[in-house]
This record gives sequence, structure tokens and C-alpha cells, in this order.
Amino acid sequence: MTQINTITILGGGLIGGSWAALFLSRGLQVRMADPAPHAADQAAAGISAAWPHLAALSSIPATPPWQAFTTTPDIATACQDADFVQECGPDRLPVKHDILAQAETALRPDTPIASSTSSLMATEIAQHARHPERVLVAHPMNPPHLVPLVELVPGQHTNAATIKTAHAFYETLDRVPIVVKKERRGHLANRLTSALYREAVHIVAEGIATVEDVDRAIANGPGLRWALMGPHLIYHLGGGTGGYRAYLDHLGPTQQARWAELGNPELTPETMEKLVQGLEQELQNMDATRLIAARDDALVALAKLKKKAGL
Amino acid sequence: MTQINTITILGGGLIGGSWAALFLSRGLQVRMADPAPHAADQAAAGISAAWPHLAALSSIPATPPWQAFTTTPDIATACQDADFVQECGPDRLPVKHDILAQAETALRPDTPIASSTSSLMATEIAQHARHPERVLVAHPMNPPHLVPLVELVPGQHTNAATIKTAHAFYETLDRVPIVVKKERRGHLANRLTSALYREAVHIVAEGIATVEDVDRAIANGPGLRWALMGPHLIYHLGGGTGGYRAYLDHLGPTQQARWAELGNPELTPETMEKLVQGLEQELQNMDATRLIAARDDALVALAKLKKKAGL
Repeated sequence: MTQINTITILGGGLIGGSWAALFLSRGLQVRMADPAPHAADQAAAGISAAWPHLAALSSIPATPPWQAFTTTPDIATACQDADFVQECGPDRLPVKHDILAQAETALRPDTPIASSTSSLMATEIAQHARHPERVLVAHPMNPPHLVPLVELVPGQHTNAATIKTAHAFYETLDRVPIVVKKERRGHLANRLTSALYREAVHIVAEGIATVEDVDRAIANGPGLRWALMGPHLIYHLGGGTGGYRAYLDHLGPTQQARWAELGNPELTPETMEKLVQGLEQELQNMDATRLIAARDDALVALAKLKKKAGL
Repeated sequence: MTQINTITILGGGLIGGSWAALFLSRGLQVRMADPAPHAADQAAAGISAAWPHLAALSSIPATPPWQAFTTTPDIATACQDADFVQECGPDRLPVKHDILAQAETALRPDTPIASSTSSLMATEIAQHARHPERVLVAHPMNPPHLVPLVELVPGQHTNAATIKTAHAFYETLDRVPIVVKKERRGHLANRLTSALYREAVHIVAEGIATVEDVDRAIANGPGLRWALMGPHLIYHLGGGTGGYRAYLDHLGPTQQARWAELGNPELTPETMEKLVQGLEQELQNMDATRLIAARDDALVALAKLKKKAGL
């Protein structure tokens, strides 16, 4: 495996900027390509904003090492010397094909191209690639420098070496890479969030509870446990000394019965209006302007807490 | 509204003991009824175990005020002088009916009877009650002294005064009460957890990812955000300056498309075996013996963190 020193980020939006901050904080050389006129400034602003949070989590320089960060409008230029590519362009297939075509003119044949896509598959992204075996999905959650999960999804032609390299690379950055074994819409995490969201919409649409109360229920109830452990492990603990098997034997039928009663809502204009109005009601009871800052501060504190707890 | 000084807990299991610790920490007189031979000892052990966590969260006496805690095998005895009843008996309807019948022989007619039931409805619990208007569901999540959510669900005959009293009471205990407006299996939070769990089972059953990776994905991805805010608010932030409306306009169709592809698994013996084996694999990579203690320590730290962040 090649030592990864230089990483190229294709696309300088919110996700690209957040990745850049993380990579720079670990001493990597970062080359960013984005054709937009103010892309470089915006990326720099994102890096500066992320820096204090990264500094709170590990020992890094007081200010971003700007000499290690270059930007260019040109994809091929940015790809020269790349040991790894993190692609963060718009989630439209023709755009991805175009980005890959340009990138492959400059890349070594075995440099991994990891797409941050949330909605496309590696197989379709690599459709016209010269070297589809080095293309994979590496999907983070927003913001990538604070949420450790990275979903690695190989395409039909992705080789094992690429997945291995990517897995090892993200681990060196203290990310939590997981391998999704089959290409499915939403990969893994967004399937789970969609499943939760479907019922969250149903509950509001049916008038069972308000938007605000659904949100308060999650953030003061099951969400607290989900920050610490996943659903399978939670039910294992719920099974007492008998563990997961006892849980499934005793309460599996209850789960199955509940599944049968879950809703299947449609996002009609009426339902959307109900959701938006409910959300506006919720915002009246909170300081909306500082929500994102509060979330990011709390994610940093949560990362420290989990490390200390060994969870 | 009567000042609540004395609270009666009917049922001294894990949930009853946790409620008792919380109530005692706030200076209430606690009367517990449980017919089991070692119920008093077990409840005392639960209270002692919970105390350091409660002490970490607010200023309370160094040791539990045991003089404020009495136990008896007899329900009617425990209900004398009760200002509020927290019922924590087994989740079987005939048992609930029997508990209520005994309790009502001793209670004043307007003392609220709040059931901790996770699976029954207030209407059915109050079926034969003399005063069904004071019966409600007040469902906590485990452990109630550390997870703030309390779901209040009125039955068909529950009056508004009862809900108002219960809501105010749990708020004085720094709980987060929410009112579920319709009686539905699983109330609200467990419908949401079931919805997530259904997809978590599907993903394993279909071989998309392992049990361990599903759990790691949640606890290092979306679970971190859910500890801070609910799904509606998260998507509002995901909509940028356009907020929730922009999110729904642009990404509502994506959600709807994902919903159509979510799984509908059955807990067959084969699937259960796959889940149990996957969980055993996961446990090999963690210190299972200290999981519950680690979770409870982390829940305390999380509560502090959220208070500080204002989330």
C-alpha cells in the first residue's frame, strides 16, 4: 500500500471543506479542485471554522497549515501527485462521469477515487472509468470532520485492495469506516435514518404528536442511547442475562406486531405544510440562530465523552 | 392542583427502583408496594446504585434518605396518603386491573394513577376503574432516572386535569414530558425505535452489513445527532437557509423513493440466529461486562453536555 501523503478533493462545498480541514489537521497535503469563482475562499472559511473543533479533539497546530493547501479550478492539475482522491461533486451521474474522466487523465492507475455521494452507487459512477477497480463510495455524514462514520461501498468492479487501502486510510484519521456489502439506495445509515423519518412523518401526519414533540422525544429518549450504541446491542442489553436471544424470543413477536402497525405516509403538499408549520412552532421555543454552532460544539464534547467511556 | 409530597410506586422491579431513586432525590416521600419476598432489598439496591448518577446531575444528599422510603407487600397500604401513583407492575391487562382495583380502595378519587406500561393503553387499563378519569400512561425509557423522556398518553376517559397535573409533576423532576394525542401501540418513542429496528434487521437479514457494522454506523453516525436533536429539526438544518420547506421540496422525493425500498423483514428462526450470531461477534470486540455501567456513566455525562449546550 502506498503511503498516503497527498489527497485531492474534487468539489469545494460544505463537505469538501470539512474533509479538507480533517485531512490538513492530520498533516496531509491537500489539493482541491473547484471551478466556482469563490470556491477557494469558501473552502478556506470552512477550514478556519472547523479548526477549533478539530483542535479540541486532538493535538494539532494552532492555525491551519495553509502552505499544505492548494486550490485550482482544474481537476487534472489537482490530481497530479494524488495518493487518494475524495470526490465531493454534485450528486448527478453525468457530472460524476465528467469529473472522473478528467481526474483519470492525471492520476496513477491505482490511486483510489472515493466518492462522498449519498445517492449514487460506485458501479454507476465508474461506468465509463478507465480503472473502475479503484472507484468506491466513501460516504460521510455531515459534518465529516465531526461525525466519524464513513460508509465504504464497493461497486461491482472495485477491487479488494482499494477497499483495504481506503479502510486503513480512514482509520488513521480516527474515522469509523464500515463496509457495506451490497449497493443499495441510501447505502446503510441513510436507510436507517429514512426508516426512522418515515414513522416521524406518519406520527405528525396522523396527529399522534406534534413535530416538536417527536423531536423532543428522540433527543431526550432513544437518541441518547443511539449516540452510545446501536439498536442490536441495545436490545441485547434489554434481554438481561439471556442477552439478545432472550430478547428476540420474548419480545421479537412484539416488534413484529409493531412493524405491522407502522405508517406508510406520503409527502403530499398537505403533509409537507403540516411538517413545516410544526417545525416553525418548534423553532419558536429555541434559539435557532445558534443551533448549528451548538450542535457542532456538542458533537465535539460527545466525541470526548464517548472516548472516555470507551463506547 | 394538590402539592405532590407522597408518591406511591406499585411494582418494585428495575423501573420501579429507578423511579424511586429519582423521586427520593427530589425530596419526595416514596411508598412502594411489591408482593415479592425480596422486593424491598432489590429496590434498595437499585436506589443505591442510581444515587451516584443522580448526585452527579444535581445537588442531593450524600446518601438516599431511607426514612422517606417505605415498602409493603400490600397495595392499599402503600396507597394511603398518595398524591400520585406510578404504576410499574407486569404488562398484563388482568394484572393491571387487579392492581388498580386494590389501589382505588385506598386512594382519594382524584389522585392520578400513571402507568409505566410500554405495551398497554390507558383506556384498557382503566376499563374497570372507579375513576378512569385519573388514569393515564406515563411511559419512561430505561433507566427512567437517566433518560428524561416521559410519554404521557391519556385514555378515552382521562380528564385534562390529570394530564396537566402529571405534566407539571414530571417537569418539576426535570423530566421531558410529551403528550401523545392518540393511543397507539408503542406510544410514540417505541414506534420510532421499532421503525429503525425493522430496517436494522432487514440490513442484516439481506447481508448488506453485519450486526456489528449496523451498530457502529448508528453510534458513530446518525445516533450522535439524534442525541442532540430530532429528525425534523435535523432536516430543517439540512435545508440550509431555506429550512425545512427547502429540504422537503428538494429532498422529499428522495425520502419517498427510499421509503419504497425499505425492507419488511420477518423474525424467522434463521434471521434470529443470524442476529444472535452477529451480536456475539460484536461482543468479542468490546468489554461486555462493563457495558451497562459505561452506558449509565455516559448518559450522565451526556445530560450535562446537553444542558451546557442548551440542546
